[in-house]
Amino acid sequence: MYYLYEITDFLDEYLQINKFRDLSSNGLQIEGKGSVETVGFTVDACMESFLKAKELGVDLLIVHHGLIWGGLKFLKGIARKRIKFLLENEISLYTAHLPLDAHDEVGNNIQIMKLLSGSSEGFFAEHEGIKIGVFGEIEKMEVSELKKRVDSVLNTTSRVLNFGRNEIEKISIISGSGSFAIEEASQISDCLITGEYRHEAYHVAKELEFNVIFAGHYETETVGLKALMEKLNERFDVRTIFIDVPTNF
Amino acid sequence: MYYLYEITDFLDEYLQINKFRDLSSNGLQIEGKGSVETVGFTVDACMESFLKAKELGVDLLIVHHGLIWGGLKFLKGIARKRIKFLLENEISLYTAHLPLDAHDEVGNNIQIMKLLSGSSEGFFAEHEGIKIGVFGEIEKMEVSELKKRVDSVLNTTSRVLNFGRNEIEKISIISGSGSFAIEEASQISDCLITGEYRHEAYHVAKELEFNVIFAGHYETETVGLKALMEKLNERFDVRTIFIDVPTNF
Amino acid sequence: MYYLYEITDFLDEYLQINKFRDLSSNGLQIEGKGSVETVGFTVDACMESFLKAKELGVDLLIVHHGLIWGGLKFLKGIARKRIKFLLENEISLYTAHLPLDAHDEVGNNIQIMKLLSGSSEGFFAEHEGIKIGVFGEIEKMEVSELKKRVDSVLNTTSRVLNFGRNEIEKISIISGSGSFAIEEASQISDCLITGEYRHEAYHVAKELEFNVIFAGHYETETVGLKALMEKLNERFDVRTIFIDVPTNF
Amino acid sequence: MYYLYEITDFLDEYLQINKFRDLSSNGLQIEGKGSVETVGFTVDACMESFLKAKELGVDLLIVHHGLIWGGLKFLKGIARKRIKFLLENEISLYTAHLPLDAHDEVGNNIQIMKLLSGSSEGFFAEHEGIKIGVFGEIEKMEVSELKKRVDSVLNTTSRVLNFGRNEIEKISIISGSGSFAIEEASQISDCLITGEYRHEAYHVAKELEFNVIFAGHYETETVGLKALMEKLNERFDVRTIFIDVPTNF
Amino acid sequence: MYYLYEITDFLDEYLQINKFRDLSSNGLQIEGKGSVETVGFTVDACMESFLKAKELGVDLLIVHHGLIWGGLKFLKGIARKRIKFLLENEISLYTAHLPLDAHDEVGNNIQIMKLLSGSSEGFFAEHEGIKIGVFGEIEKMEVSELKKRVDSVLNTTSRVLNFGRNEIEKISIISGSGSFAIEEASQISDCLITGEYRHEAYHVAKELEFNVIFAGHYETETVGLKALMEKLNERFDVRTIFIDVPTNF
Amino acid sequence: MYYLYEITDFLDEYLQINKFRDLSSNGLQIEGKGSVETVGFTVDACMESFLKAKELGVDLLIVHHGLIWGGLKFLKGIARKRIKFLLENEISLYTAHLPLDAHDEVGNNIQIMKLLSGSSEGFFAEHEGIKIGVFGEIEKMEVSELKKRVDSVLNTTSRVLNFGRNEIEKISIISGSGSFAIEEASQISDCLITGEYRHEAYHVAKELEFNVIFAGHYETETVGLKALMEKLNERFDVRTIFIDVPTNF
Repeated sequence: MYYLYEITDFLDEYLQINKFRDLSSNGLQIEGKGSVETVGFTVDACMESFLKAKELGVDLLIVHHGLIWGGLKFLKGIARKRIKFLLENEISLYTAHLPLDAHDEVGNNIQIMKLLSGSSEGFFAEHEGIKIGVFGEIEKMEVSELKKRVDSVLNTTSRVLNFGRNEIEKISIISGSGSFAIEEASQISDCLITGEYRHEAYHVAKELEFNVIFAGHYETETVGLKALMEKLNERFDVRTIFIDVPTNF
Repeated sequence: MYYLYEITDFLDEYLQINKFRDLSSNGLQIEGKGSVETVGFTVDACMESFLKAKELGVDLLIVHHGLIWGGLKFLKGIARKRIKFLLENEISLYTAHLPLDAHDEVGNNIQIMKLLSGSSEGFFAEHEGIKIGVFGEIEKMEVSELKKRVDSVLNTTSRVLNFGRNEIEKISIISGSGSFAIEEASQISDCLITGEYRHEAYHVAKELEFNVIFAGHYETETVGLKALMEKLNERFDVRTIFIDVPTNF
Repeated sequence: MYYLYEITDFLDEYLQINKFRDLSSNGLQIEGKGSVETVGFTVDACMESFLKAKELGVDLLIVHHGLIWGGLKFLKGIARKRIKFLLENEISLYTAHLPLDAHDEVGNNIQIMKLLSGSSEGFFAEHEGIKIGVFGEIEKMEVSELKKRVDSVLNTTSRVLNFGRNEIEKISIISGSGSFAIEEASQISDCLITGEYRHEAYHVAKELEFNVIFAGHYETETVGLKALMEKLNERFDVRTIFIDVPTNF
Repeated sequence: MYYLYEITDFLDEYLQINKFRDLSSNGLQIEGKGSVETVGFTVDACMESFLKAKELGVDLLIVHHGLIWGGLKFLKGIARKRIKFLLENEISLYTAHLPLDAHDEVGNNIQIMKLLSGSSEGFFAEHEGIKIGVFGEIEKMEVSELKKRVDSVLNTTSRVLNFGRNEIEKISIISGSGSFAIEEASQISDCLITGEYRHEAYHVAKELEFNVIFAGHYETETVGLKALMEKLNERFDVRTIFIDVPTNF
Repeated sequence: MYYLYEITDFLDEYLQINKFRDLSSNGLQIEGKGSVETVGFTVDACMESFLKAKELGVDLLIVHHGLIWGGLKFLKGIARKRIKFLLENEISLYTAHLPLDAHDEVGNNIQIMKLLSGSSEGFFAEHEGIKIGVFGEIEKMEVSELKKRVDSVLNTTSRVLNFGRNEIEKISIISGSGSFAIEEASQISDCLITGEYRHEAYHVAKELEFNVIFAGHYETETVGLKALMEKLNERFDVRTIFIDVPTNF
Repeated sequence: MYYLYEITDFLDEYLQINKFRDLSSNGLQIEGKGSVETVGFTVDACMESFLKAKELGVDLLIVHHGLIWGGLKFLKGIARKRIKFLLENEISLYTAHLPLDAHDEVGNNIQIMKLLSGSSEGFFAEHEGIKIGVFGEIEKMEVSELKKRVDSVLNTTSRVLNFGRNEIEKISIISGSGSFAIEEASQISDCLITGEYRHEAYHVAKELEFNVIFAGHYETETVGLKALMEKLNERFDVRTIFIDVPTNF
């Protein structure tokens, strides 16, 4: 058993929570009970995750997408229902959005690179002064082969814009929504791996003659949480659970 | 019995909630149960008011000082405890801050003028494009007499800066914290009646040779709520209760 | 033959170009030749559209997504290539982004409503003071039937989140990316029809027990241009062409 | 006799005037005569202080609350009268607001700690990136005893919110108006000592079961000036005078 | 003899002082004596004007360029000397910057048009939502002839960029510094008349094949003051004086 | 022959392009052909310079005043004509505005100091955190002599405000438009040398009893480019050309 603050203090420091300017309120968004035995990890702060968390006896739930973006003006509708559930069940909600994308050990992007057995060479795609994305080298393979590997390691079904050269050696990675950085990615890699498809990506990739693999918003953002889970296990003697709530959409 | 939205829609319109730029989130801050039989009115959103509200079976609590100022970043500490209590007990929290100071029927300032049997002549003390304060004429009296009347109608013990002329005919009123407008008040009246004492008021009043009566932050902000309570009673067949939680400080 | 400014002056006024605060520079973004005989209409400002426009002898190309968002800092890479092509070929580029979503005659949203034989009842989903979306009533039908109709009139293959009640009578519409307004849509309709799927939509729709039809970003934004094309034809004796560049993705 | 700039250059550097983002224009606000023999120190820039300064032959007056906050738009009314007096009498006005609250040697907070024979342990209560308040340990005593000591060393009559535990070992200090930081103070100390009472403090302290001593806005802000006076005496061979203008209110 | 406020109230309303967003603090910048017999008018708030104003017994000085731009942070150096002089001599300073450029009766631009016997057709050159410049028709003449007329009516020696057609029928006017609007001016007139030469004007005029007459910053800004002087004379029984302090540079 | 990026990468680093907050988009504003043999240098991005650049076979044109200030919203009129010309002729445009004023080796200000055989002592005149101007000592001479020297080394005809003492030993320099810093300059030097005359300079210099030499906006900004040209020649084996387009106005 640990005091809540022992764990959140560790997370705040390890994830450098205060270094990021982010619409998301990062850190302990909702304070639940003061002691923690079981820590849950899930991508989205939603009722489905919360119900499972409760069932599983989770005291502290760590998420990538929290409940508070840009400050809460009103507790009505969905926001109210979700917050009410957490408060009544005394489940704490800890959020790490950009800090978990960009982290150099457990970050989503560095973890995807690792799963693809690539070697990271640097960061790119700056957001408010901090580079979020990762790029580097992988074993040479064709786009179709890379798609298979991505699907396999992330357990997903990617969609591909195959407008670039077929041989891939250099990749760049931005979990979640990375279409905004396609042009920069095309200058440092042969293919961008990102999560969610955006309309604006199509013609940009086409005209740059560049490849983009969309591996799913959800799927690209589970890996950082899983790595963080391991890290927490090394450090604290708590029970940890990954709560998988894919949208399959 | 009414649907919650029937009452809040009325309040939003009657108080012109959306006309004001205010740090306070005005309107329904916390959504409780969907039906309303009992409406409570109190100055401050605090545990003491909430506990009484619960005891009295309040479904909807209308306050002057709500829980959300400038957007809520985190639900921790006091904020969490208060919100948790309201959510668990399904008490809705409706907030009217500046809209209740400045309202031309039930506003705190116009109501204080009325209690002093004065006749309002206009508004002053602009905040983001809207004038909040009220000024006008009262029966001629000495400062000491005016203090007595204020103490009597607001049930308070005022503190007085008596630096101006002793005969009062014109008064100006800003409930709560009105020291910022002393100079403007001195141009249109013989005495400002406001709530809370601020250090910056002393020398300004002294050099302007002007009178200020500090009638208490709490005390000057009960009257608008009481007037709104009456208005609501006229309009809806609900039980209404004023919850008095003075700080006596 | 018309002077360029005769047509752009008409468009500026008819579409109320200056009423909107929009990241997009709305109006004549790139000035081409001074006289206009052929006007092209296409959704995206991209090389594929430009090449077709050139082939078809287009003098003025009217688009929904232009080339300038938030001011151009540098003319490098793709931006340079696209602008160079237009300038060299003297093709003018006129952009109507939000003004074409929200227009009450030729707007994307009002046009989709019309194609579904619905009757508009009002606007919703405010952006910087202007409501962009449309809601109203259609003939009662099941979600699956509505999806078929949407697919048929927009020539698309929609994806559906069918979490709400099956009988649809009231619909709400936001072309392009409308996930941000699902909660508001759920209060005034049984189903939201929008363009692009966003990850954040899934759990919101699920918890609201609400239906969302994603008809494709591209497909929901062709209809306003087509309506504007008709309008222009009524008014000016020019040749008009719709340039279809779907992404099929 | 010194040149004015010799003294103001020293103050600018010693107080790190340019490190703070502050509504107050810190530094030499009003330039008077070029040579300085007598330096006055007073809390507020007001006519009463100015008249005494003149009588006492002050060339340079150093204050905590100056005349310019957020830029002067107009020289009318009180502002004009005060500035006119200083200019006509060639008295320079030097202002140190936040730089004098937070200074680690002569700051108001560190000085109050010293007067209470406490040992400072750190800073808290961040304002625009700089921590203003001081916290630390004192000899264990009861709240009532602490109040007596505060009253004695600051020559004041404090008001106390005694909602916390009676035994005090850790205290936190914010001169002037420190109610905004009660919650943070309650996490690192048993009692907050601050200057001015604010309505919002009451219920926060009550619900946190925390003690607050309000020692007066004026009284808590004399000590930094007195310490700075000593410092100046060590460094320059000038006559120095503390001008006491309490409001006793 | 009038109370100061009688005249400034009239000016505030007549010049619509509060309608403009302007770096200049428009209105009564420095309050002098309460009664007014003599009103001076001059372009620049500078010592030379002030000294003459004093000599001439001016109580209220009305200027185009005042002393406060964007808020005064410090009263040091020149700012201090000028303000000190006005305060000591109790000369009030009233400023009308953009309100006097753009006014439709006494504005600098409309007055220059009148002096050139032109007929105004409209306003152009928007600044924060208000159009400042004037354009219209004059008797047809050559550029060289227009320059002569400008020199004659404004008592100046203009510099001319004669890159446009020689026959002038339409002119546009912006007093002071109008180079920022050359491109707009070239679309509605044959020649822009403005005050001060700016480096950026040269190539813009050249490439637009457009004429610009630079009649001097000072000279283009005396006419509005003179017209306002007449207006004031009609309205108030005061002595008025125009104080001419040309820079001849 | 070099790749374009080899030269622009060098310039970005050598000129510390990213250190400055500047309205000008500094760096490669317009991308032309990928390889560079001839580099042109000119003060203003205008058609006259561009035509000469083309004639001379320039691949990359380096300017002080570029085409993009504060982001380009529309490509119309002059902006369009200029950009079209560059794009069609594949001439790259590289801009160094403040970075070239303030540079400590090739900056305009340090270069003017050098041409006057002065010794720099420091920087002054801060803009967004960076000091732009240079001050230092020269051989003692009279103002009239200094004017002659300035005219000779800059090949210009200066205008002089000779309000200060006649003997000059200390000078301060701000190329282009430096009137905003006259007061600061007067505290550290006997004479300011700047480019463009501004109306506001006259009375400030007069009241400060200070000298200002206006050497021409154009003329004061050729020297940095010429020094940069030399630097580039040392580093790269390219043909370089200075394109002189004075305005003589």
